[in-house]
Amino acid sequence: MRILAADQFQLKREVEYGTPEQNEAVRQIVAAVQKEGDAALLRYTEQFDGVRLEAGSLRVPEEEIQAAYDRVDSDFLIAIREAAVNIRAFHEKQMRKSWMDLQPDGSMLGQIMRPLKRVGLYVPGGKAAYPSSVLMNVIPAQVAGVPEIVMVTPPSTGGKEGIDPYILVTAAEAGVKEMYRVGGAQAVAALAYGTSSIPPVDKICGPGNIYVALAKRLVFGAVNIDSIAGPSEIIVLADDSADPSYVAADLLSQAEHDEMASAILVTPSQKLAEAVASEVEKQLAELPREAIARRSIDDYGAILTVGSIEEGIAVVNRLAPEHLEVMTEDPMRYLGMIENAGAIFLGPYSSEPVGDYFAGPNHIIPTNGTARFSSPVNVDDFLKKSSLIYYSKEALMASGEKIITLARHEGLEGHARAVEIRLEREGGKGK
Amino acid sequence: MRILAADQFQLKREVEYGTPEQNEAVRQIVAAVQKEGDAALLRYTEQFDGVRLEAGSLRVPEEEIQAAYDRVDSDFLIAIREAAVNIRAFHEKQMRKSWMDLQPDGSMLGQIMRPLKRVGLYVPGGKAAYPSSVLMNVIPAQVAGVPEIVMVTPPSTGGKEGIDPYILVTAAEAGVKEMYRVGGAQAVAALAYGTSSIPPVDKICGPGNIYVALAKRLVFGAVNIDSIAGPSEIIVLADDSADPSYVAADLLSQAEHDEMASAILVTPSQKLAEAVASEVEKQLAELPREAIARRSIDDYGAILTVGSIEEGIAVVNRLAPEHLEVMTEDPMRYLGMIENAGAIFLGPYSSEPVGDYFAGPNHIIPTNGTARFSSPVNVDDFLKKSSLIYYSKEALMASGEKIITLARHEGLEGHARAVEIRLEREGGKGK
Repeated sequence: MRILAADQFQLKREVEYGTPEQNEAVRQIVAAVQKEGDAALLRYTEQFDGVRLEAGSLRVPEEEIQAAYDRVDSDFLIAIREAAVNIRAFHEKQMRKSWMDLQPDGSMLGQIMRPLKRVGLYVPGGKAAYPSSVLMNVIPAQVAGVPEIVMVTPPSTGGKEGIDPYILVTAAEAGVKEMYRVGGAQAVAALAYGTSSIPPVDKICGPGNIYVALAKRLVFGAVNIDSIAGPSEIIVLADDSADPSYVAADLLSQAEHDEMASAILVTPSQKLAEAVASEVEKQLAELPREAIARRSIDDYGAILTVGSIEEGIAVVNRLAPEHLEVMTEDPMRYLGMIENAGAIFLGPYSSEPVGDYFAGPNHIIPTNGTARFSSPVNVDDFLKKSSLIYYSKEALMASGEKIITLARHEGLEGHARAVEIRLEREGGKGK
Repeated sequence: MRILAADQFQLKREVEYGTPEQNEAVRQIVAAVQKEGDAALLRYTEQFDGVRLEAGSLRVPEEEIQAAYDRVDSDFLIAIREAAVNIRAFHEKQMRKSWMDLQPDGSMLGQIMRPLKRVGLYVPGGKAAYPSSVLMNVIPAQVAGVPEIVMVTPPSTGGKEGIDPYILVTAAEAGVKEMYRVGGAQAVAALAYGTSSIPPVDKICGPGNIYVALAKRLVFGAVNIDSIAGPSEIIVLADDSADPSYVAADLLSQAEHDEMASAILVTPSQKLAEAVASEVEKQLAELPREAIARRSIDDYGAILTVGSIEEGIAVVNRLAPEHLEVMTEDPMRYLGMIENAGAIFLGPYSSEPVGDYFAGPNHIIPTNGTARFSSPVNVDDFLKKSSLIYYSKEALMASGEKIITLARHEGLEGHARAVEIRLEREGGKGK
C-alpha cells in the first residue's frame, strides 16, 4: 500500500450518469410502464430476467414468505433479529413531534410532522441483495410511521428462479407485508406511477444497478428518491497506540466491497504507516475477495502521513469520508474537531462492520465527499413537515400594515389587498 | 371563474428541464468558470448583464451596503426588521441538538448535528428580487449555525446598474456579510467550484431563471442545492361561514404571482362558490397585475364543489397544495385529516400573505404536489448529521459472533475478519 504525504493526495471520482443508450433504454422502459402498466412489467421481466410470470402473480404470496423461513439458518435469524432490535432502538431516538407555539394574542404557529404514506424499497437481485440493507431502509421508515412499505426485487437470483429466502425473511422480520417480484427500471417506474397490481409510492429507496439508478433519477419529482450511492469509503485516523493488524483488517473490510472502494489510513506515525502497509499485504493474500480488494487498495487506497492528529483531522474534513475510524489515544477528544464524516467510529473496538450490521446507526451513509452536506439515512427522510399558521384577528390587525408595506414594496398589490380588505372590514380602517 | 365538480379536475404541470440549447449553454458556462475562474465571471457579466467590472471588484464593498440604507424607506425597514424577528423566532424553535445514548457496557451511540460550513444564496435581478425571500433563505441557515452565508446577485437591476438597495439592506439586516455582483449560471458555477474571488460553498439556495435552475441541477453532487420551485399554488377550503370577498382576495393574491400559478376554491357550498366567482371577477378588474392573474385563474384556477368538507379534504390530499387555507367553522378540527399541504393557514385572519411576509414560518414551500413527500425550507436543510459509534470491548466481545454471522452470510469475509481478529486477540477465541 503506497505511503505518501497527505497533501499529495486527492480522491477523484466521477458521478455515473450512464451512456446515452442506457438513458434512452430507461426512458423507454419507464414510458412503457406508465402507459401499459402490468403488461409492460410482465414483458420486461421475461425479457430481462428470463422469467415468465402470469398476470396477477407479481405479488409474492404469503406462503412463499412463510416457506422461506424453513430455508434460512437459525444463526442468521437470531443475528438479524437482534440487529433489527438495535437499529429500531437507535432510530426511535430520532423521532420528532409536531409542535405548536401559542401566543398571548391567540395566534398559533407550528410545525406538523407526518410520515410519508407509502414508501417503496428496491432490493437488487443476486449477490448484491444484502439483508442488512433491507433493515437499514425499512426500519427508519417504520419508525417514522410510514403505514405502507413495499419491497420490489427481481424474480430470479443469480440465475436461479425465486427470490433469495434471506431477503424474504429479513423483509418479513422488518415488517414488510407487501412484496413484488419485479426489478430493474420497470420496477422503479411501477413504484413511481403505479400499475393495477402495484399502487404508486411517495418515495423510492434502495440501491440498484445503473438502470435502476437512472430510472430513479428520471422519476424524481413525481416521487421522492433517496440519494444515489457511490462507491464506499473509509478513513482510519490512527496514532502509535493503534494495533496495525486491526487497522489493516478494517481497511480491507472496506476495500473488499468494490474495486472503486477507497480505504485510507491517515497517521502521524511513520512506524504505524509501515506496519499497516505490511499487514495489509499479509491479510490481503488470505482474503477470498483478494482481487477486488487489491484493485481498490492500489487504485483508491493510500496511507497518508501527517505532522499531527490535528493535521490528520484537516485531511478528514477535506475528504469528508463516508466512514471514519479514530484509533488514537483518547479518541473522544477529537470529536469536536471533526466537521465532515458520515459515520464516526471511535476506539479500537468500533470496527466498521459493527456499524454495518449491528450497533444501530444506519449503514446508508453519504459517499464521495457529500458528507459535507448530507446525512446518513434517518427517520427525517420519511417524515414531511407542514407549517401551521393560525393568526388571530388581534394579530392581523396589529401587523396588517407592515404586511401591506412589504407586499406593496414587492409589487404584489393582490397580496396587500388580501390583508387590506380585512383591515377595512374589521379593523376600523376606512376605504 | 369556472365551477366544476371536484372529480372533474386534475392539475397537470410539467417540470421544466430546458431546451437542449439552454442545457448546452449552461454546460459551457459552468465548464468555463471551473477552468478560468474570475476571468470567465467577468466575461459573462459583460456579455449577459452588460456590465464591465474590474478584476477584484466582484465583491460588493461595505460602503455600498451602508449607502443602500439611505435609499430605502423607513417603513420598509421597520417592517422587514419585525418580519426578521418573527422568522428567526419560528426557526429557532426547530433547532436540534446532538445526542448520545450511553449504554451500561460503556458503549455510546449518537447523532451529531452540525451546520453546513458555507452556504450560497442566489438572488435574481430585476423584479424577481424579493427581499422577503432573502430572509426566508438566510435566517434558517443562520439559526442552524452556518458560519459563512454569501449572496450573489446580478450587478444590474432592470436595466439599471447597481444592486437593488432593498436587497442589500435586507441581506445586511439578515446578517449576510459577503455579497458578490454576479448572476446567472456563472454565479452558480462560482459558488459550486470556487474562483479566486469567491470560495466554494456546500449548498446553493434561492430561485432564478431557467439558466440558474439548470446550472443548479448540473452542479448538484459537487454541492447540495435546494429544491427547484415550480409555480405557486393555493387551495382555499371553505364553507358557508367564509366571507366570499376574503376568499376571492386570497385566491387572487396567489394568481397574481404568475400566469402558471394555481388558485383553487374547494367548497361544499354552491352559494359560496357563486359568490366567490363573482367577487373574483369584481376584484380582478381592479388589480394592477390583472392580466397575469386572469390567465392564472382561467388556465389553472377552479372552484371545485364537493359533498362535504371531508370530501374536500380528500381533494386537498390528492392535490397536495403548496398553500392551504381552511376557512370553515372550527377549522382546527380538520387539522388531523390534512395529510398533504406545505403550509396550512387556519381561519379567516390567516390570509396567505401573513405567511408570505411576516408570521415566521418559511414561505419557500414544496410546489407541484411535492408536499406529499417534502417540506418547507427549515433549519434541518442547513444541518448535517453524523452517526457516532463508540463500542466498548465488552460490547464487541458480546456481539462479535453475530456480526461475523451476518457478514459471512453476505459473502463479505473481510468484514467478518475485522471483527474476528479482535475476538481472537482479546476475546479468548483461539484461531
